[in-house]
Amino acid sequence: MTRRVADSPKPLYQQLADSLRAKIISGELSPGSQLPTEKDLCEEFATARQTVRHGLAVLVNEGLISPARPRGYFVRRHELSYVRPQSEWRPQPSSPEMDRWMEEQTTLGREPSQRISVEIIQPPSKVAERLNIQPTSLVVARRRVRYIDSEPFNINDTFYPYELVKGSEILNPADIARGASQVLTELGYEQVRATDEIEARMPLPDEVARLELGPGNPVLVHRLTGYTANDEPVRCTVNVLIGSKHVVLFERVKPGKASL
Amino acid sequence: MTRRVADSPKPLYQQLADSLRAKIISGELSPGSQLPTEKDLCEEFATARQTVRHGLAVLVNEGLISPARPRGYFVRRHELSYVRPQSEWRPQPSSPEMDRWMEEQTTLGREPSQRISVEIIQPPSKVAERLNIQPTSLVVARRRVRYIDSEPFNINDTFYPYELVKGSEILNPADIARGASQVLTELGYEQVRATDEIEARMPLPDEVARLELGPGNPVLVHRLTGYTANDEPVRCTVNVLIGSKHVVLFERVKPGKASL
Repeated sequence: MTRRVADSPKPLYQQLADSLRAKIISGELSPGSQLPTEKDLCEEFATARQTVRHGLAVLVNEGLISPARPRGYFVRRHELSYVRPQSEWRPQPSSPEMDRWMEEQTTLGREPSQRISVEIIQPPSKVAERLNIQPTSLVVARRRVRYIDSEPFNINDTFYPYELVKGSEILNPADIARGASQVLTELGYEQVRATDEIEARMPLPDEVARLELGPGNPVLVHRLTGYTANDEPVRCTVNVLIGSKHVVLFERVKPGKASL
Repeated sequence: MTRRVADSPKPLYQQLADSLRAKIISGELSPGSQLPTEKDLCEEFATARQTVRHGLAVLVNEGLISPARPRGYFVRRHELSYVRPQSEWRPQPSSPEMDRWMEEQTTLGREPSQRISVEIIQPPSKVAERLNIQPTSLVVARRRVRYIDSEPFNINDTFYPYELVKGSEILNPADIARGASQVLTELGYEQVRATDEIEARMPLPDEVARLELGPGNPVLVHRLTGYTANDEPVRCTVNVLIGSKHVVLFERVKPGKASL
């Protein structure tokens, strides 16, 4: 079958991208399924391989398909996990060896793992602003990359003013089962309120490397700042979440109405 | 000056992208400033124009620069406006001719405008799920594109079950100064709680057209569902926010602690 329309105003590679995109959005090509081969598309659209590749590249940059050489192209899966910032104030999990995220994922039947490292650095400028400290002062950065079933899932970097946490467990690059915020509370810095800021952008090169991202894969950046009852910011967490794997969820009640 | 490193493992277009990216991230090339011309980059990197264009295309897809032909390439500005879902429950604005968003933007010295259209349609599947209705039932879609200083800013589409709002002002494609949610309250469907779901993805073709987006520009999708005291979902809003222009902000207080 030949689909070429000689007097069409759109270039052929765009027609090809439009045709495949429509099938992906309608579900005719379902998540995880393989696209027709480049050879088949050359025949269907009566065109050269370079044009077919150009059309496929459009869909790769739109995040709709991924190349898996040498097998071909696949419709990208968007299996979204909920991230619930409000859940940090629920009681801590029961298992003493696992932190909350590890426990939640295990309950879902997945195999979670994480790599933790600790650095003492000058803070990134946005972190310094939120912690209300000089850019030249020191912070402890607890950096985590989390994996599910061995695939990178998200980055979770938390920054604490060094003066507040020096000598504590927070400097140890290992899991803290009761949670690092509980350690802050024990040090006299209980967090009683927080702000959550959420942005979307393309990943930076170090995020591409840490999360093993391909093109067309934006990230959600979730910046959480925790404050004490004295309005002192004591912690800034920067979560970098792969867009095709996460939804951030909040629940709220109208002031004056019964709580959830 | 020639920067070419003959035995470098990276292709030259990537070296060029790396070099310019580092200057953008450090601020040496500031937001809004013009990049060196293609001709200058050809000389600096001692390479052909095609290689320079390949390197620049990498940064365009990363959202760091935008082409503005025929003048050249510019460092993209990220001027972020805060979106505060919780503010919908503050008292309505004082100006009777303007809705809240228009009033807020005017206060900031900007020139806001919006285009409103109303359709009666079968709901998108994600909206049907959230409104807990059959995909074949009808909804009223109030669609808005909002502009600031004549540039597209965001999409704000709200879906209501048709049975709930038929015959009301919500079907009129014009601004409702007291807010559509107030109309719902008058109809007996006051919303007392809501969920906010936030995702990041590349825009779909109709979003690219409505928001006039270029490559490397992901969107934040904010899906808000409002419920009555009987737990009936009566409204689903889908906000599509240009990633380089918006931050979604929440503020929360630890349960049992004094409110803000």
